[in-house]
Amino acid sequence: MKPVRVGIVGYGTVGQATARIIASHAQDVHHPGDVLLIATKVCRRTPIAPADLPQGAQLVADWKQVVYAQDVDVVVETIGGTTVAEEVVRASLESGKPVVTANKNLIAESGEKLFALAAQKNVPIGIEATVAGGIPILRVLSESMSGDRVQAVYGILNGTANYILTQMETTGAGFEKALTEAQKAGYAEADPTFDIDGIDARDKLCILARLAFHARVSPVDIATIGIRQVSDVDIHYAKRLRSKIRLVAMAERNHDGLDLSVRPWLVEDHSMLAKVEGVNNAVFLQGEKVGTQMFLGRGAGGDPTGVAVVSDLVEIARNIVAGRVTAKAFSGFTSWNDAELHPGRRAVSWYLRLTVADRPGIIARVAEVLAEKEINIDSVFQEPHMSKDRLSFVVTVEPVLKATIQAAVKLINQFDFMREPVLLLRISNSSESARDLPLS
Amino acid sequence: MKPVRVGIVGYGTVGQATARIIASHAQDVHHPGDVLLIATKVCRRTPIAPADLPQGAQLVADWKQVVYAQDVDVVVETIGGTTVAEEVVRASLESGKPVVTANKNLIAESGEKLFALAAQKNVPIGIEATVAGGIPILRVLSESMSGDRVQAVYGILNGTANYILTQMETTGAGFEKALTEAQKAGYAEADPTFDIDGIDARDKLCILARLAFHARVSPVDIATIGIRQVSDVDIHYAKRLRSKIRLVAMAERNHDGLDLSVRPWLVEDHSMLAKVEGVNNAVFLQGEKVGTQMFLGRGAGGDPTGVAVVSDLVEIARNIVAGRVTAKAFSGFTSWNDAELHPGRRAVSWYLRLTVADRPGIIARVAEVLAEKEINIDSVFQEPHMSKDRLSFVVTVEPVLKATIQAAVKLINQFDFMREPVLLLRISNSSESARDLPLS
Repeated sequence: MKPVRVGIVGYGTVGQATARIIASHAQDVHHPGDVLLIATKVCRRTPIAPADLPQGAQLVADWKQVVYAQDVDVVVETIGGTTVAEEVVRASLESGKPVVTANKNLIAESGEKLFALAAQKNVPIGIEATVAGGIPILRVLSESMSGDRVQAVYGILNGTANYILTQMETTGAGFEKALTEAQKAGYAEADPTFDIDGIDARDKLCILARLAFHARVSPVDIATIGIRQVSDVDIHYAKRLRSKIRLVAMAERNHDGLDLSVRPWLVEDHSMLAKVEGVNNAVFLQGEKVGTQMFLGRGAGGDPTGVAVVSDLVEIARNIVAGRVTAKAFSGFTSWNDAELHPGRRAVSWYLRLTVADRPGIIARVAEVLAEKEINIDSVFQEPHMSKDRLSFVVTVEPVLKATIQAAVKLINQFDFMREPVLLLRISNSSESARDLPLS
Repeated sequence: MKPVRVGIVGYGTVGQATARIIASHAQDVHHPGDVLLIATKVCRRTPIAPADLPQGAQLVADWKQVVYAQDVDVVVETIGGTTVAEEVVRASLESGKPVVTANKNLIAESGEKLFALAAQKNVPIGIEATVAGGIPILRVLSESMSGDRVQAVYGILNGTANYILTQMETTGAGFEKALTEAQKAGYAEADPTFDIDGIDARDKLCILARLAFHARVSPVDIATIGIRQVSDVDIHYAKRLRSKIRLVAMAERNHDGLDLSVRPWLVEDHSMLAKVEGVNNAVFLQGEKVGTQMFLGRGAGGDPTGVAVVSDLVEIARNIVAGRVTAKAFSGFTSWNDAELHPGRRAVSWYLRLTVADRPGIIARVAEVLAEKEINIDSVFQEPHMSKDRLSFVVTVEPVLKATIQAAVKLINQFDFMREPVLLLRISNSSESARDLPLS
């Protein structure tokens, strides 16, 4: 069997897992129709023990020695970042070599241009590994849902943020402590911005929304709020409301456009979103015909991401062996509808946590602002024995549009008794809870 | 755009849903690379209102008028059963026409022969709709898991049985009453044998196991027990054990072979299996590298099944348009390892419900049998106020092999105080509960 030769640019966690899975895959190749993958070149700038290199592979320091190598048929880009990564992907396509990338940031930002180049050169780009690691959600969206119309795709797309929230729930730790622990456990980077500020989830949502709605969506179109402001007090209040806090990325079709956001939600304990714990990911897919489906699994880590990379490599290798390499169309990237983006067209309930220097009349002032905006209060509550100097209490309100609650929050934030800005959580209300579960 | 013409043989629930989805898909076709499907022929023996036919399609009574029609490029087999269905699929392949089937019974029984014919004629068979309706689990197994090694695939594959069990839980109805209600609601057939005796789940498991393990598995290899013997008393005892009863189909890799079974399990309330309610399906997929994934959604019904049929049609149509129709390899059907089947190689806990004519000494006799087989009793309990003449009680035992507990049950069933055979439920123990959830 003639092997298909793979070059790996960027030999960190995902690159090394990919190499191991390629080696293990080769051991399982026995059948007619199977393809044999071998890693022939590896690019890494820092030294590595020979034992950690794929057997027979050559280590090089310059990515050009991979991309332009005679003995590389397919390039894997696992270098991360966007500058060099984009050069690597472009150079591969330019030289007619299929490329597989795990780089969500690159595809979310520059996917449209890269797929245009791929179409021009008639070479495929594999992107399954960019979203939700081992959960094969992109293949599901682009192949299995071809007969249906997607109404919504939403879920928990960042394992680090979910791990931090779960730790805060179970250990009672504050945000900073939970973050430090996540860093110690290897689940958060030294600079955790991408994960905890929602940027990683936003880039993944951008890719999901393009494939789900065949729509031209850019990361900047997605209102994004992370979990930095969620405190142990909020976890405590959430428990009182029999709920959990989850960072939810959501893309939803309205009657006249799309609504996209990444923000923390308050979700009821019995909902499926609440049951997603630790570094897991979950994607909910709501189709006009299939109803709601849920996909749950490990969203990150070398091995699950490597499996996704290798699934693309096998698909490409089959086509190489069959002599029919072509660009693969990803509707949304390679062509699109011009969907209008209308964030927040649906009224939902909200949780507002205020932290104030206590004095009489505060609730009256807050209630006045809400009344002025025609927002109905659902409940107001606070824990006893809090410091008067820094007292946190919660207001929940009945469904209103996002713009309405944001206008009210802006006014409330101006009061001199406010010790920090309001934390605003979207409450997953009963109709959404129903949507969490496949309908019977 | 040149349309790809579809002929539908068998125009019941799934056939009609497929036609509707084809029509709705055609409205969404705007992009370069899209394919246009139209239904040109429909075969149905009983009359139907013209409004229920696809626009422009011709109604015929003989399936040969579909398969051999000049204006049919792809055949959809939604006739059910195995005799005529097999003729339809064979005739399509023989005449070089790709075929898509929703027929799990046919593929489980005759898939190997049909795929051999398909390979010989170099024509694809689409089978996504045969398992778990709208959940695209076959595409996931054959494409997305190509880099991983599957350890286990298991889940709830029959929506009717799950609906009946859920109804018994929520309404307190007995089995017969819940079955009658399911029939009235249209969730169970007049002859419910396939669903409630586990045959439908067994056929689906057979297909899953072939793709997951590349193994030659036949329906007769799968020990199959349905839910007919589960009574309201068991639902009651399950509640006492903070558990639910679910019909679970499981295929698991042992160190030296495969273990396959369909049988009712006792699963803890907090487990993901217990959370699958009503007519939903759930498939758990445990990979060496990706860990455990869960796929949850509607497992049956016209629309979800039709979406699966159309996803295969779109894939085939793309290849027709690109001029590259070939047989599609399904490892496990088109080639295989010779896996040995060793049912029940792992010790698990068991629930035994005995229904007896009460008299002193019964528990002693039962305990003696269990002791003789070296089975440790975990608990014995019964509800108060039961009729002495027909008293049900439960024994749970510590992990033993299936063969061991079955030998004990055989002896117990011979006692003259037994009013009906022991109901034996596998208990999903703690290690399996952990497996229910993706590992962090």
